[in-house]
Formats: sequence, C-alpha cells, structure tokens
Amino acid sequence: MKLNLIQKVLLSSAFIVFSFQHLIASSGGSEIIPQTFFWIVIALLVARLGGFVEKFGQPAVLGELIAGAIIGNMILINVPFFEGMKSNEYLHFLAEMGVVILLFQVGLESNVQDMKKVGFKALLVASVGVLLPFMLGRYIAGPMLMPGLTEHAYLFLGATLSATSVGITARVFKDFSMLHSKESRIVLGAAVIDDVMGLVLLAIVSSIVQTGTISMIQVVQTIGLSIALLAGGTIIGGMIAKPLSKWLSKLNPGSAMKLGFALSIGFAFAYIAHMIGLAPIVGAFTAGLMLDSVHFKNFQEPEYVSEFKRAVDDADKHVQERVHMIAEVQHEKHIEHIVEPIGQFLAPIFFVMMGLAVDFSVFMNGKTIITALVLTVIAIVGKLVSGFFAGNGVNHWLIGWGMVPRGEVGLIFASVGRALGVVDTTEYSVIVVVIMLTTFVTPPILGSLVKRSRIS
Amino acid sequence: MKLNLIQKVLLSSAFIVFSFQHLIASSGGSEIIPQTFFWIVIALLVARLGGFVEKFGQPAVLGELIAGAIIGNMILINVPFFEGMKSNEYLHFLAEMGVVILLFQVGLESNVQDMKKVGFKALLVASVGVLLPFMLGRYIAGPMLMPGLTEHAYLFLGATLSATSVGITARVFKDFSMLHSKESRIVLGAAVIDDVMGLVLLAIVSSIVQTGTISMIQVVQTIGLSIALLAGGTIIGGMIAKPLSKWLSKLNPGSAMKLGFALSIGFAFAYIAHMIGLAPIVGAFTAGLMLDSVHFKNFQEPEYVSEFKRAVDDADKHVQERVHMIAEVQHEKHIEHIVEPIGQFLAPIFFVMMGLAVDFSVFMNGKTIITALVLTVIAIVGKLVSGFFAGNGVNHWLIGWGMVPRGEVGLIFASVGRALGVVDTTEYSVIVVVIMLTTFVTPPILGSLVKRSRIS
Repeated sequence: MKLNLIQKVLLSSAFIVFSFQHLIASSGGSEIIPQTFFWIVIALLVARLGGFVEKFGQPAVLGELIAGAIIGNMILINVPFFEGMKSNEYLHFLAEMGVVILLFQVGLESNVQDMKKVGFKALLVASVGVLLPFMLGRYIAGPMLMPGLTEHAYLFLGATLSATSVGITARVFKDFSMLHSKESRIVLGAAVIDDVMGLVLLAIVSSIVQTGTISMIQVVQTIGLSIALLAGGTIIGGMIAKPLSKWLSKLNPGSAMKLGFALSIGFAFAYIAHMIGLAPIVGAFTAGLMLDSVHFKNFQEPEYVSEFKRAVDDADKHVQERVHMIAEVQHEKHIEHIVEPIGQFLAPIFFVMMGLAVDFSVFMNGKTIITALVLTVIAIVGKLVSGFFAGNGVNHWLIGWGMVPRGEVGLIFASVGRALGVVDTTEYSVIVVVIMLTTFVTPPILGSLVKRSRIS
Repeated sequence: MKLNLIQKVLLSSAFIVFSFQHLIASSGGSEIIPQTFFWIVIALLVARLGGFVEKFGQPAVLGELIAGAIIGNMILINVPFFEGMKSNEYLHFLAEMGVVILLFQVGLESNVQDMKKVGFKALLVASVGVLLPFMLGRYIAGPMLMPGLTEHAYLFLGATLSATSVGITARVFKDFSMLHSKESRIVLGAAVIDDVMGLVLLAIVSSIVQTGTISMIQVVQTIGLSIALLAGGTIIGGMIAKPLSKWLSKLNPGSAMKLGFALSIGFAFAYIAHMIGLAPIVGAFTAGLMLDSVHFKNFQEPEYVSEFKRAVDDADKHVQERVHMIAEVQHEKHIEHIVEPIGQFLAPIFFVMMGLAVDFSVFMNGKTIITALVLTVIAIVGKLVSGFFAGNGVNHWLIGWGMVPRGEVGLIFASVGRALGVVDTTEYSVIVVVIMLTTFVTPPILGSLVKRSRIS
C-alpha cells in the first residue's frame, strides 16, 4: 500500500484523534507537565514553520515572533486553542531560560579583549541612546502627544523609551553570523551599559516619584553594584574560572563536566545580575564573555576530533597539519557547540512566547495607535542618532537599528510605573504598542542592512 | 599578585556575599524564575561533584542520587538551605523533562530491528518480572510481614512490587556505553512491556477495589490503546517521519530544524503516552526508537564534518576513504550528538531531584525498616528470577538487576492506592523505602557486573 504525504498525515491525525477520544483517566502525577510537553511541541513546530521567512532572506527570529503573534491572536477569530500556552508557567520559565542561554552563547562567542577595544564607543552610543530618547519622551513627545498627564507619568515614559533589549539584535546578528563584527560588539557593549544606565534611571525616577527627591545613596549604590558585578565579577570570576576548570577537568575531563561547569557559571551570573536589579541576560552575557575558550583546554578533546586525527596518522605532513589545525579549533569551540543545541531548543520558545504576548486588539483603538506610532518614530530616531556616535569605520545605521528594540526591559519599566500608580492604562497600552513595533520592525531592517553591507 | 585556588575561591565567595547583602529590591518580574536559576546551579554542581564516584568505577548516576540525598537531608542536621529546591515546581518540571530526554536519547541510540529480535525474550522477562513479584507480594510477603491489612492493601503492594522504572538502568547502561548490548536491549524492551502490563494491572486492581469485579472492557481498552500507541504509533509515525523530515529539510536543512523536528516527535510521543495512561518516558523511548538515523540524512552535514572532508581533498585515496567513512558516521549520528547536551544538562537534575526526595527519617522506625528490607529482598529476587528467562548467551544477572529499580512507577502505584484509601501511611512508608533501596542498590551492582563481564 503506497500512500502520499497528505494521506499519511491524515491517517496519523486520525490515529492521534482516536487516541485522544479514548483517554483513560491518568494515574496520579501532575497533569500540567505532560500538557507542557504538548505546548513545547506546538512552540517548536510553529517556530520551525516561522523559520520559513529565511527563504526571503529574513532572520529566523522574525518568523518565530510572527508565528507566535499569529497563534496568540487566534482567539480574535474564536479559536481559543492556544490560550493555554499564555497561562502556562512552565513555558514562560523555559522561554526565560532560553533568552538567558542565548545571551550566554553570545557571550561565549564574543571576546573580552575585542569588547574592551570598543568600550569607549559603546559607552558613547549607550549614553546618547539613553539620554536622547529619555529627553524626547520626557519633555517633547510626552507632553505634546499625551497632554494632561502628571510630570511623573512623562518621567516614566522617557525612561521606558531609553531601554534597549539586546535579545532580538543578538539573535539577528547570530542568525547572520555577524557576532564578530565591530558593529555587533559595539551594540552588545552598549546594551550592557544601557542596562546599567537604565537601572540607575529607574532608581532615580522611582525615588523622585516616591520621595520627591533623588536619593544619591541609592544612585551610587546602584552604579557601584552594577560595576562590581560586571567588572569585579568578570575579573574575579576569570581568576577562579581557570583553576576551577582545571580542577574539575581532573575530576572528570568529559563533556558532561565541561557543560555543567559552563552552564553553572552562566546561570549563577544570571541570578546575581537579577539580585542586584540588572536583567538576568546581562549577567549571562557577562558570564559567557568571561569564560574564555582557554578555560576549556584542560577538558577532553571531543571523541570525533580524535577519530579524524587518527584517520590521517599516515597521511602526508601537510594533510596532517591541516586536519590538526581544524581539530584544534573544534576542540576550542567545543563548548560553544555543546551549548548551541540547548539554545536551539529553548531560544525559539522565548521568541514564540514574545510573539504570543502581542495582542492585536490594542491596535483597534485609533488614538492609541497614532500616539504609539509617533512615539515609535521618536523612539527609533533617538537610537538611530546614537549610532552616529560610534566613530568611523562602522555602519552607523546597523548600530542604531541594533539599539532600537525595547523588548521586555521597556516593559519592566512600564510595569514599575504602573505599580507605583504613575502610569495609567492608556499610557501603558501605548508603551506596549511602542515596544511591539520596535521589536517587530527591527529584524527585517537589520536583515536588509546586513545584506546590503555584504554586497558593498 | 599571585593567589592560590583557595584564596581565589575565598575572595570570590566574599564578593558574592557582598553582592547578596546589598540587594536592591528587584524591579518587577517573577522572583521564582531567577531563584530557579540559582537552584539549577546547585543541582548541576552537586551532580558534578557526585560524579566523583566514577573514580571508583561507579556509574555517575549513583553519585547524582547520593548527592541529591545528602543535600535533601541536610534539614535533619538543621540546615534548611536546600528545602527550597524540594518545593520548586520549575525544578521538578526540568527533572521530568530530563528523564524524558534521557529515554528519548536511549531510543535514538537503539535500533528498532535489534529490539524486534529480542522481542520474545523481553516479553518473557517482563511477564515473569511482573507476575512473580506481584504474586510474592500479594500472597506471601504482604500477609506475612504486614498481617491484618485488607486484601486490597495486599493487591496494591503486589502491584507496586511488579513495576520497573527503566530510567536508572538506561542511564547506567548509557554511562558504560552498553546500550547496544543484547542485555540492554532485552531490559529496555522488557521495561516497555512491563509498563504496559503494569498499566493493565493497575486498571484491574483499581476496578477490583472500586467495583469488586474486573472490568474486562477497561482491560481490553487499556491493552488496545497501549498497543495502538507502541505499535501503531511507531508504524504510522515511521511512515510520516520520512516524508516529513524530507519536507522540513527542504524548508531549512540546518541543525536547528533537525533538532526541532526530533524534539517535537519526542515530546509529542511522551504526551500521547501520558494521555493513554502510560509513563511519558515510554512514549519518549518509542519516539527515539522510531526516528531512524535514515530520517536525518536529508539534513545538512554538520559544518565540521565538511571541514575535515575538505582538508583531505588532496590526500591519498585510503586516507580520504577513512575520513569519509568517519564523516558519514558523524553525519548519521549528528542527531544523537545534538540531543546529548540537552540530556547532559537536564538528566542529572532528574537524578539529583530523585535523591532529594529520599527522606532519611523514614529509616528511624525499626519495624518499617525491617519490613521494608525483607520486601526489598523479595522485590529483587522476583526480578532476578525473571532475568533467567532471557534465553542463552546473555548475562542473566545483568538483565535481572536491570529490572530491579521500581522508581517513580512504583510510587505512582502506591499513590493511586493511597488515593483510593487502600494503602495506609505505614504501608506507604514501607513502599517508599523499598523503592529507595531498589533504586540505590542497582547502580553499583550493575556497575560491577558490567566490569566483571568485560574482564571475562
């Protein structure tokens, strides 16, 4: 019996429907965990189908966002099937883990020396990218577009516009193998600094709202702690990472130990970053940056590398040399290679869940949407200008657009404002639309900028 | 300034303590997720430190169990620090995902043809391994060791003793690269059949307790559904997996698509298995078994494989041939290699959490412990006898001991019995101790059996 693909899919669907209809009450154990397995399947499948946009030269992350947004809004056409995903806590947890792993990977692929080289430029870009959108939002766009709100409301609007969420950009640069470019390093560096500045800004704004004055102690403490984590953590961490990895590799030189060691440091830094008020992804990125590939040299060479080396034992000298060179690079990059599948598994869940959070119904309100559109333009312009402070020899547009997405960092600001009773529902909706637009508009534009820069 | 390892660790600990003491209240977002990152670090670290037992030739999983049991019982010496792990839902979820991925890996490494070859032997082993412990528990050990309980209570005791949880054994065989041995295949096959039989037994026992009679409809339905999943799912799944993977590889032949496709099928089968009442790990194992490496041939060859191949382009013919042969194996096994790190990350969390669930205080009661010890001996003997039904040319002890761990499957039985009001607290405690003992005693014994079989 020969069946074509359609027939086979139909047959297997019938089988699955049959299985479902004849459920036997399950015996004990949590129901939510297997249900989550089902949602994971859905998330992975729609993410992969969304990857379809790559056919049009778009970064895969755009497809994941769109796929998530589509299934997340099926409720609007009376298909409530996917609503269970939104309320599934485990899925949100996996998503959060996904973005932490992603930034950890980005850190692993980056190099601390290269980052230092662009440090001053990143500082300039971050400063302009925080101050300009803040000023524009606080003093111009806010009072003009949403007159009648309190000063405090404008303060929070400005703060929200100043945020940068580096997840999207990091992923686009990763999708296009651009992480080693100068532009990518400046954006990554600026995003880290931006997060620290954002934290300071949030501390200032919150203390103005709550006490009417700026608590200098808190500002100094915030800055001090952030620097302690980023600089101190990196230096001290770098110091102990070396002997620690040597000791662990003696205990067991296999890849399980290597991976366990790397992930432990990644999650530990994510946790510490969160504890001092920074985004966990900033910690994870720092951890990845700190873990130089040198730290993994003591661990075993991967089995396949040894196999290939043995295979050329009696070959010509130049063949042997070439193979050994590749082997060495493979050995060094092995940690990146074994973290990669974890990222490939979890990061798409993050972006699908990010798309899922988009509620198309906020676009129904004409006034909201116009205000949001104008604010989005301002939010974008503020960041684009910052790109021109990155000095010569780089693509300023690429840097500017790389800083545009506000993502969940902007959302945290807005949420704090709402919790303090400063940001009302309308302003919150406007901010959510601005965040959505900056998030969705960035991947295709970065994509075409990357392609254009490669042609020229 | 030169510091030794101890000084560096102290310095970094001081830094971390400093960071903690100066916490700034975090800005929005869930607190539990970053907290879970911290517990992941702890779980990974103790798992790796537990791996220390490998130095003594023991399987790593034993170390993970012991490490988990130690930190889980620190509360007994007034160190409540690790209690937060026990109540962390996300951690339990990751653990559950870990064992699903582990059995999926084991399925991927196994071969459906090889499994079929040992099918009849596995059926024999499973049948004896279910019936004998059930009979011993129901008619001899139960009434003799715990006189005065109801007939129903003995029924459940027997059912609990009949269970087999293959997670431990699969992991030990994997740790020792034994998955391709005939013994391993028989145990894996028998464990799957055992799970189906256990499900039928649970249905029978539950219906006797609830209605006084055996519901033949339910028994037939349970058997039918299980076979539908295992046989039907494998056949139909195998039929669509081929064209589906071809189609997906056309959409994107990269490793992200390959991994997404494989994991989707793994989690889907775990979910369906759960829905019809089987353990999710049985579904995951079936999915892995179904996914023949042939299905992944359409996907791209990994980058490093191409690199090595290019490096020998101008080498001698026999060198080229050797490298190309290794390259082909690498290409075929690539799916196993990219699932591996996910398993290496999550599976240890499962075993640490399993150790964590062990409560040493149940060992304080002399009567409980003696009853449990005798029952454990019976539980072990019942499974050891089953090993001798595996035919000639295999190590019967290895098979018998491979069937010994009761794990979470036995616990589910006991929980259902307790929910039905049949199993009382004392009987439940006894069962828990039996499960613990069968779980902890198996890895070292399997380890020494494997080593002895290798010497001879």
